[in-house]
Amino acid sequence: MDKSTRRAKFEGVWNVIHDELLAHLKACGMPAEAQEWYSENLHYNVPGGKLNRGMSVVDTVEILKGRPLTDEEYLQVAVLGWGVELLQAFFLVTDDLMDSSITRRGQPCWYRVPKIGLVAVNDAFMLEGAIYHLLKRHFKKEPYYVDLLELFHEISYQTEIGQLIDLITAPEDVVDLSKFSLQKHSMIVVYKTAFYSFYLPVALAMLLAPYEVAKSILIPLGEYFQIQDDFLDFAGVPAQIGKVGTDIIDNKCSWCINTALSLATPDQRKILDENYEAERRVKVVFEEIGLREIYAEYEKNSYKKLTGMIDQIDEGTSVGLKKYVFKSFLDKIHRRQK
Amino acid sequence: MDKSTRRAKFEGVWNVIHDELLAHLKACGMPAEAQEWYSENLHYNVPGGKLNRGMSVVDTVEILKGRPLTDEEYLQVAVLGWGVELLQAFFLVTDDLMDSSITRRGQPCWYRVPKIGLVAVNDAFMLEGAIYHLLKRHFKKEPYYVDLLELFHEISYQTEIGQLIDLITAPEDVVDLSKFSLQKHSMIVVYKTAFYSFYLPVALAMLLAPYEVAKSILIPLGEYFQIQDDFLDFAGVPAQIGKVGTDIIDNKCSWCINTALSLATPDQRKILDENYEAERRVKVVFEEIGLREIYAEYEKNSYKKLTGMIDQIDEGTSVGLKKYVFKSFLDKIHRRQK
Repeated sequence: MDKSTRRAKFEGVWNVIHDELLAHLKACGMPAEAQEWYSENLHYNVPGGKLNRGMSVVDTVEILKGRPLTDEEYLQVAVLGWGVELLQAFFLVTDDLMDSSITRRGQPCWYRVPKIGLVAVNDAFMLEGAIYHLLKRHFKKEPYYVDLLELFHEISYQTEIGQLIDLITAPEDVVDLSKFSLQKHSMIVVYKTAFYSFYLPVALAMLLAPYEVAKSILIPLGEYFQIQDDFLDFAGVPAQIGKVGTDIIDNKCSWCINTALSLATPDQRKILDENYEAERRVKVVFEEIGLREIYAEYEKNSYKKLTGMIDQIDEGTSVGLKKYVFKSFLDKIHRRQK
Repeated sequence: MDKSTRRAKFEGVWNVIHDELLAHLKACGMPAEAQEWYSENLHYNVPGGKLNRGMSVVDTVEILKGRPLTDEEYLQVAVLGWGVELLQAFFLVTDDLMDSSITRRGQPCWYRVPKIGLVAVNDAFMLEGAIYHLLKRHFKKEPYYVDLLELFHEISYQTEIGQLIDLITAPEDVVDLSKFSLQKHSMIVVYKTAFYSFYLPVALAMLLAPYEVAKSILIPLGEYFQIQDDFLDFAGVPAQIGKVGTDIIDNKCSWCINTALSLATPDQRKILDENYEAERRVKVVFEEIGLREIYAEYEKNSYKKLTGMIDQIDEGTSVGLKKYVFKSFLDKIHRRQK
């Protein structure tokens, strides 16, 4: 995908985010003019830049995962990317005010737009506040949620510390070159720029990617495990599985009956309908339909698909994921008889 | 404790917090003038108010727990209180700037102090950043850590939303009374003041208190349980406890040997030293020392102490703690023989 297509895709998520933030204000019962003001604040200050920082979150996650993201994954990761852009907007709006800048991204600085003025300070706060509102909406259930919050907190604080040294080392009205040094310059740029512009996007991606890779393998692995369970309830040898299967008698929504329903002839369907609670005849239909062969096929494909996913893990990116962790899980359940 | 003593105690914690924040800047390698600037920012803007918001966190936790806090507990809860004061300082410093105010708490507003000016905006950010730095230091290990972060985020965002409506409903230079209404006034004051001033301190206390009460009972309960284990290893009937005790043979650091060591005569001590691995003779010394009676006494006291703590729970404050939850735990283990 070329850069302008990637940018357009990333910008597409901005509309979702903007609408979510506005919907929240509306749900709080805020007057229409406050909603319009916030909307204008967001549109004017967040999406107009190069978007390199935000897009690099998405790019880095794709590199770490070694494959393109699904639509659902893309949305979630892009929210983090826009979180970085919101953080930058929060800083830029107030930097411009503190530096008495005139233009930004080819338009007047926000505080110089008619009627804005010093309200820009509170507008900047709301850009920052939006980050945590969005993180809660999109990441609260993730095991790394608190790490995301801490990363944004720490990088924000470090950027503010860098901004402080910059402001007091080079006050606008007093020239004092004795305060300057290359060492101080290095500290200023590292703290006020490098942390949020370079470290933050990659750190976010590194935080998220291993969990996402693990989830993308372990969720289908769990599905495979449950289908084995369902199949063994029907086909397992009681002496081996340690119990007599009761899914049919219990009228369970099992993989077996659902597979059978999807393949049954009208006559077989009739028998299933009439007899799902009369076990023996149902089992006869299961055999007629060839459930054993279908399951063997399913198991073969599942194993192949999961092995393929595990093989794709790039151990070299050293985000703590090792193939054998997943392989040992898979081998523990592959072709199990109980 | 009268109000001025309570205030002095709360102010004492401010010094600890100030020093922690400065130590962090120093550890980051920030130049001395940045440290001095931040120190001045903190001292000038945070502790000079009535401190009602911050102190009400401590007061509410004490009410919910039904007893005064230990020194260690006080420090932790006071950090939350100062978090509320830092949040308020963050807002006030920039409010004064946006409103072109002249004085605050009997001194010039921070932005009007010579050399400060618009740097006040970044100074305000650092007051906010300090909150999350402190929460991480003092609460990261607590099960309710993420809830604390979310509460501060949400209340900050709501206050900023309230500030937005206030600023655009009553711009400094344009009088337009048609924008006013009692309903809008109510919304403004609820969002920009009530949430952070009244709801936040009590919500913080309500979040923390139940966990703290639970911890203060369940940790000694767990200790009691382990001492029972140690005692039963020595005195339990094998048929009843389902195993033969091996603590003496295994040279374990058990409650029994430690209690015996603390009470042994020189002769008994000699036998213990020479025979801790020769079980029978050690047990004879245990019996001589009267370990059974000492344990019975310990168990009686533990039960009484824990029952007392449970009785102190004030169910009426309805923070979700019920006496019977703890009582049922205690009754499950009291006088157990296995």
